[in-house]
Amino acid sequence: MTSLLLSPAERAQLAMMLEVCAFPKPGNVDRCHDYPDTRLEHFLASVILARPALDEAALGKGRIGEIIGHAVRQTSMHSGGNTHFGAFILLIPLLYGGDIEGARTAVTRTDVSDAVAFYKAFALTRVRMNEEDELDVNDPRVLDELRERDMTLLDVMQYSAANDMVAREWINGFMLTRRGADILHQIGPGRGAVVEMFLTLLATEPDTFIIKKHGRAIAEQTMEKAREVLDGRRVLETFDAECIEAGINPGSIADITIAAIFIALGEGWEWDS
Amino acid sequence: MTSLLLSPAERAQLAMMLEVCAFPKPGNVDRCHDYPDTRLEHFLASVILARPALDEAALGKGRIGEIIGHAVRQTSMHSGGNTHFGAFILLIPLLYGGDIEGARTAVTRTDVSDAVAFYKAFALTRVRMNEEDELDVNDPRVLDELRERDMTLLDVMQYSAANDMVAREWINGFMLTRRGADILHQIGPGRGAVVEMFLTLLATEPDTFIIKKHGRAIAEQTMEKAREVLDGRRVLETFDAECIEAGINPGSIADITIAAIFIALGEGWEWDS
Repeated sequence: MTSLLLSPAERAQLAMMLEVCAFPKPGNVDRCHDYPDTRLEHFLASVILARPALDEAALGKGRIGEIIGHAVRQTSMHSGGNTHFGAFILLIPLLYGGDIEGARTAVTRTDVSDAVAFYKAFALTRVRMNEEDELDVNDPRVLDELRERDMTLLDVMQYSAANDMVAREWINGFMLTRRGADILHQIGPGRGAVVEMFLTLLATEPDTFIIKKHGRAIAEQTMEKAREVLDGRRVLETFDAECIEAGINPGSIADITIAAIFIALGEGWEWDS
Repeated sequence: MTSLLLSPAERAQLAMMLEVCAFPKPGNVDRCHDYPDTRLEHFLASVILARPALDEAALGKGRIGEIIGHAVRQTSMHSGGNTHFGAFILLIPLLYGGDIEGARTAVTRTDVSDAVAFYKAFALTRVRMNEEDELDVNDPRVLDELRERDMTLLDVMQYSAANDMVAREWINGFMLTRRGADILHQIGPGRGAVVEMFLTLLATEPDTFIIKKHGRAIAEQTMEKAREVLDGRRVLETFDAECIEAGINPGSIADITIAAIFIALGEGWEWDS
């Protein structure tokens, strides 16, 4: 497929679609596995419904925080809950800036209005956060707090970076996004590359979503098991079943996987050959 | 999901997504089964890529034949071949007219320019047709023939109606589309209703795509087996496996299923409750 002929928003949608369909993707919703309340169709409905916000971001006008809010609102029109909040945190600046270089610049231009819009969007999702967080999204005073401290959205991401690898992408220049795209180029064309890239990231980075839910030890065990699958010492399907059984879903690496597919598609990686 | 808040194009995309994900859908590509050259991801890529043509149709301006052509061209940007030609033949007039009543009027207003645009789009697909057809899409003289006879696109559908149940929808006022939507309302909310509706249509109508490929006897046997599944005398998964083994794919009933989901969503049928 000549993905280079697609619009940026279409590439972002294709990336979201390819990520959720890729299987078996240990612990996450995929072609073979639903969660009780969030199913494959909910993810794919979000892919469809996010189009206007993705188009808006690709224009590179308006404010990033607000556009993330639009994406969250548009994709909340189904009963499956949050599907792509983390992915939008990456895709929207990447679309806005046009590429990783442009996104690095774009995030430095966010201001307190972006931070406020982002927190309003965050409050609409049911995304897990650390309980001791002093910028708690459920605390009604948080917006005043942001304004008093004059925090930009980049400041918010800096604040969250220690515990959230998606936020960390804003700080480190989209390093894992870049690495994921490079892995796809190395593996070569075909949808099978998505699972291998996902596993490679999972083997080298503790997923912060798993850490928030289950603690660091479980996140590190999961890395170790992913490494064993890549080395042929563990069966992928068994690993998947173990993750599902234990409720271990590497959601943040899934978000970065989407961003990496988006970048790779824009650089000519072919998903369907 | 409050599908009534969606744009018409979003509803059409949702219908296409729900149809291809529904499983097990005997003989067709679904969540559990790919064809070697056409996979789930190709169908879902088409769902994403068709958006501009679906939006164009919903405006109710321009020419139906040309918009079908746009949809075919937009969705040919992957290597999976034709995925939704039949579905577009139904969705485009339904979007154009706003509902079944409007589509009935819209198809009567097609002219020879629609017929010519449609045949040009048809030639881009690899859709099976009867070999003895005198309006053979692969015959370069066919466009002159259409012009000489001053055939409208409705005339073309009339001409094809005897052997093609999708074309027949244009002639009979979208009768099976209406019946499929009514079946969804009767079954009630939830994605499981899609498979049941598909089976119900399959049990009562010989699929003309199967007839063209395998002959009438096989199409009638397939109806019989679908009836047995609905009556609990045959296992759905076994029926699916038999169809796949024999290369029997009820592609035209899949197209009508998409149109029926689209209509039902617009009338408040809830897919995700």
